[in-house]
Amino acid sequence: MKIVIAPDSYKGSVSAVEAAEAIERGVRNADPSIQTILVPAADGGEGTLDTLVSATGGRKKTVRVTGPLHNDLNAEYGILGDEKTCVIEMASASGLCLVSPEHLNPLTATTYGTGQLMKQALDDGFRSFVLAIGGSATNDGGAGMLQALGLKLLDENGSSIPFGGGELHKIKKIDLSGFDQRVKECSFLIASDVQNPLVGKEGASAVFGPQKGATEEMVKILDDNLVHWADLVEQATGVRLHDMPGAGAAGGIGGAFQAFFPAQMKRGVDVVTEYAGLPQALDGADLVITGEGRVDYQTASGKTPMGVAQLAKESNVPTLILAGSVGEGTEVLYQYGVISITSMIQQPLTLGEAMKRAPQLLEYSAEQLVRTFIQPNGKRGSRR
Amino acid sequence: MKIVIAPDSYKGSVSAVEAAEAIERGVRNADPSIQTILVPAADGGEGTLDTLVSATGGRKKTVRVTGPLHNDLNAEYGILGDEKTCVIEMASASGLCLVSPEHLNPLTATTYGTGQLMKQALDDGFRSFVLAIGGSATNDGGAGMLQALGLKLLDENGSSIPFGGGELHKIKKIDLSGFDQRVKECSFLIASDVQNPLVGKEGASAVFGPQKGATEEMVKILDDNLVHWADLVEQATGVRLHDMPGAGAAGGIGGAFQAFFPAQMKRGVDVVTEYAGLPQALDGADLVITGEGRVDYQTASGKTPMGVAQLAKESNVPTLILAGSVGEGTEVLYQYGVISITSMIQQPLTLGEAMKRAPQLLEYSAEQLVRTFIQPNGKRGSRR
Repeated sequence: MKIVIAPDSYKGSVSAVEAAEAIERGVRNADPSIQTILVPAADGGEGTLDTLVSATGGRKKTVRVTGPLHNDLNAEYGILGDEKTCVIEMASASGLCLVSPEHLNPLTATTYGTGQLMKQALDDGFRSFVLAIGGSATNDGGAGMLQALGLKLLDENGSSIPFGGGELHKIKKIDLSGFDQRVKECSFLIASDVQNPLVGKEGASAVFGPQKGATEEMVKILDDNLVHWADLVEQATGVRLHDMPGAGAAGGIGGAFQAFFPAQMKRGVDVVTEYAGLPQALDGADLVITGEGRVDYQTASGKTPMGVAQLAKESNVPTLILAGSVGEGTEVLYQYGVISITSMIQQPLTLGEAMKRAPQLLEYSAEQLVRTFIQPNGKRGSRR
Repeated sequence: MKIVIAPDSYKGSVSAVEAAEAIERGVRNADPSIQTILVPAADGGEGTLDTLVSATGGRKKTVRVTGPLHNDLNAEYGILGDEKTCVIEMASASGLCLVSPEHLNPLTATTYGTGQLMKQALDDGFRSFVLAIGGSATNDGGAGMLQALGLKLLDENGSSIPFGGGELHKIKKIDLSGFDQRVKECSFLIASDVQNPLVGKEGASAVFGPQKGATEEMVKILDDNLVHWADLVEQATGVRLHDMPGAGAAGGIGGAFQAFFPAQMKRGVDVVTEYAGLPQALDGADLVITGEGRVDYQTASGKTPMGVAQLAKESNVPTLILAGSVGEGTEVLYQYGVISITSMIQQPLTLGEAMKRAPQLLEYSAEQLVRTFIQPNGKRGSRR
């Protein structure tokens, strides 16, 4: 029997790799003869870089960049095990996780650091990019990122505009002349689940601005600025971003990739599982075990366990979800080939205790799941 | 597919019947075509009466009796669905649960009320008795119970001795002449897991006295008194209880049954599962689901899930244990045909929350267990 182990991280507790290893121990406790393949996964959000690097036996490189609030910080990009593909996680240079909640300000937050990471990867010779754009603190339409790569965004005096989504209204001209020409030789695979347009009621500012610290007034300013930005981008590139699905991802950087880069946008979990080698691992597998910290009705909106289950279903492989905690509405997952959804928790305890004990709880629970699945009493195949 | 559902109660939360019904709902959610047989179970401890009455469609009768501390109270005995067998639960008339901890006193506590229940059942025409003797507050060697049935325990003045294990030293003579003659026509099946002798270091007073309120000095008095009592019983009946395994059960009432009654002692869970019809239910079954509030290394000392699993194993039926909470050392249960041991708990919560939500948690967890077991993807039988 062959079991593929493809969990996400259990947020705040164990990484996807640690989770996969704990689950593997449980599977082996159930039956040491089971063949296991570990494919740590992610959905394009925070942790995607680490997971992809670990899953492929790659490495990371540290780069000094300008953070979202203009302070210098160390960010990382990843080099996959193939030594050809690099992974940029936007959160590493321009992420919400880098800013304390009281300092969040999408009027000034910039994607410049993300552009610096990309520039360094270009300098290092990489031409194949995977971009995980979840968890950004920014709403600048990707302007900062483009500036880092040589695009000039000029005001009425011919000077470059300052950083931040609040400054975009000052742009009078987009000057493409200095834009990094190596970009054209590259492929950019954007991992994003967001289908929102750039502007309007469903746009980046209105929908995602508030969680980045935007007040109602700021949302209005940010949205007006993105309209102005989209008008200029259309003039400069011919690409109309205003209503383009996905252009509103990550404060509008999704749109920037569509307009200025040879880019393809795919659902995060599909990008990760593809690079992590899940399709190959599923070949001939009898079972997939996946999971993450919390599984509930939102899991069906493209989170890792759902993406893994969908891929497994294509190969006719059943999926067991082993969650940290199970919430309401999980029955929607059954249609994606999910057999069962259970928690690793085995007794009354607090969230903190559960997180602390996650490796042991995952190991024990995975053993019990597999014992139930394989039924070592030998009755399998002779059911009445 | 046929699934037998045979849980104990989940103490402080749901009865065995309620648990079985919740689990059944989960099984049917997983696959409405599954045939279910509900066999609520118990291990001879508190709740055994209710479970047996419910499981067999029986009824209960209230009897006014003398409680452990000599106060009058209402106790119950059960009549099984066959209308022939009655069930006496010692805890109902002489139980720890009837006394607040600060009033516990094994020097005075009496089994008289248990004898009164038996006498009423005899008066009502019953001759087949099941006795669940767990949870007693007494250490009187069964003297009170015997007095209620007409045995005379006389002091040096020819007067009956008072109630309690502290009074036994006063007995000079056991007078059998008034003992209820109907007892000889009866069968008494004693449900007890205790193998302790009546007296000595492993005896009733030393091992179980403290949990009934005995201090070190009281244990010495109680043990000396039981030696005296056993000497007299041996003279009167020829049965030597001092070192007899099981004679130390329930403050020595186990010995009284061996000396004065046509009695057979069996492990509690075996008595209950036999009367509840588990052996018949297992015929042709594909799976048993059992469980109770807490499952850990102690479960292997004859608690319900272990007894159910052992019986199921004889019929080559695998067992899944669905616990309220799972503790350490459960792996010893695998040897009894247990496939897996998991908790109903699906997210971090307190013991109180778990107890309150037990019906829903059992339903959900049972559904997931059965989904994992039956694998509705149709791959069963074609495993690689």
